[in-house]
Amino acid sequence: MPKKPARKREETLRDLLRLPPGERIELSRYDARATPGAPDCKRAALADTARTGKHLAGLQERLWAAGTAGDHRRVLLVLQGMDTSGKGGTVKHVIGRLDPSGCRIRAFKAPTEEERGHDFLWRVRQALPGPGQIGIFDRSHYEDVLIARVRHLARPAEIGSRYGLINDFERTLAEEGVTVVKCFLHLSYDEQRRRLLRRLDRPDKHWKFDPADIGERALWPAYQEAYELALERCAAPHAPWYLVPADRKWYRNWAVGRLLLEELRELDPRYPEADFDVAECRERLLEQT
Amino acid sequence: MPKKPARKREETLRDLLRLPPGERIELSRYDARATPGAPDCKRAALADTARTGKHLAGLQERLWAAGTAGDHRRVLLVLQGMDTSGKGGTVKHVIGRLDPSGCRIRAFKAPTEEERGHDFLWRVRQALPGPGQIGIFDRSHYEDVLIARVRHLARPAEIGSRYGLINDFERTLAEEGVTVVKCFLHLSYDEQRRRLLRRLDRPDKHWKFDPADIGERALWPAYQEAYELALERCAAPHAPWYLVPADRKWYRNWAVGRLLLEELRELDPRYPEADFDVAECRERLLEQT
Repeated sequence: MPKKPARKREETLRDLLRLPPGERIELSRYDARATPGAPDCKRAALADTARTGKHLAGLQERLWAAGTAGDHRRVLLVLQGMDTSGKGGTVKHVIGRLDPSGCRIRAFKAPTEEERGHDFLWRVRQALPGPGQIGIFDRSHYEDVLIARVRHLARPAEIGSRYGLINDFERTLAEEGVTVVKCFLHLSYDEQRRRLLRRLDRPDKHWKFDPADIGERALWPAYQEAYELALERCAAPHAPWYLVPADRKWYRNWAVGRLLLEELRELDPRYPEADFDVAECRERLLEQT
Repeated sequence: MPKKPARKREETLRDLLRLPPGERIELSRYDARATPGAPDCKRAALADTARTGKHLAGLQERLWAAGTAGDHRRVLLVLQGMDTSGKGGTVKHVIGRLDPSGCRIRAFKAPTEEERGHDFLWRVRQALPGPGQIGIFDRSHYEDVLIARVRHLARPAEIGSRYGLINDFERTLAEEGVTVVKCFLHLSYDEQRRRLLRRLDRPDKHWKFDPADIGERALWPAYQEAYELALERCAAPHAPWYLVPADRKWYRNWAVGRLLLEELRELDPRYPEADFDVAECRERLLEQT
């Protein structure tokens, strides 16, 4: 009888999108229109995204339930990417499928005066998810090595020291039971122009447009370089970076949902067992007139 | 030619569910299984809830967009009700249809030591929605005249003073542009028992059960009385109470969605007009190589 072939470990989306830690990254070599691992067509991907949403919601409830019984684990999704890469859209379309009570969402803007009075990780620590929660950062502490670098918002030596501080911080998070999922939404220069022009074409999108975005766009190469450094220097086995091609919105939503699903499945949170006498409680309830 | 009859103002769900301010409330006279204003059947209500969700999401985007341009208006949904009345379920099924980025959700538990060091409204003020946001309170400052009254957590005189403080607070909110929508999810004693028993029947629901709920249930009459006082004393034209019959989950979700929709339609938030030169921005974008 022929031997059964050893079952090959299935390649996960995490395997496909994870950036190799420690290696030099050249973003220009990654196609922002690519759709690695995706279903055959957009239609199938949309259907799969909806299914994934249902699974995610079920796992989220288990995670939350486990959290009520002392399980300290939680998930933190970090979304980074150039303007219009779809950080907000990902929150709407992926996180929007979860129970909002179990999510903690924070969008980071330019730091306030109070925030500037503390170290750059302070405001991030204030916004972490609690046990059982799924936290979402729309931008994050990475801005302090991205725009800060490109716009010279701090001395070079200080910025240089932040990569290590970020790594230490993320290691502490891992030790405290936080699964960190960092997604870089990789957008092409051309697609950004299309999206900005579309915002100008539609009066109901004007509020999303800031003329300052044009100036930021002029610094595209500097931003790409700053991203390359951050992706290279701040990738660790416990906090890898995933490069999510983001020119196609349906792929971006599908991929981020799948990455979260893979992580939550691995966490495998369980409903806690009753720490009370179920039969006795039932009797007491039935006795109440 | 016959005169056209004056068009009658259509009765809104708010008209149907609003508790008459200043009148004595007897909760036992309200049927918790009633479905005032609802579509003919559950199936039609579910479909309408989904449609309402889409409208709500559209209006939420406008509210948020207006908020980015200086419109200070926002909405605060306050959910109160006995255990198992469905506060969490309402958040999941109604608020879950909105963009989570524009929502600020806070579930109030027993106050922490820090919170107890401040006046009872302090923690509530920390959790208010910002301009353009929709805030959701799962329990609220009303607990300080509900469980606090039933469980004697403060001196009677102090509790007595809180109704006025709440009214002052909610008037200030209205003046600051916060539309307060207070929903009392009205559950029957029998339905609560059914729901608690169901939690005991299903191991995946045990985590939601707390044996202390049985003791709280024994105080049902005292809680109903405390609710009656709160609903009577803290109703104002700018912050009315809506009594939402909650024995049928599909009605509860439908009704809370509709109430929010009516409020948001009345607010009629608008996309702000561009405060920049659209044509010039387009040219600048097209000039960038």
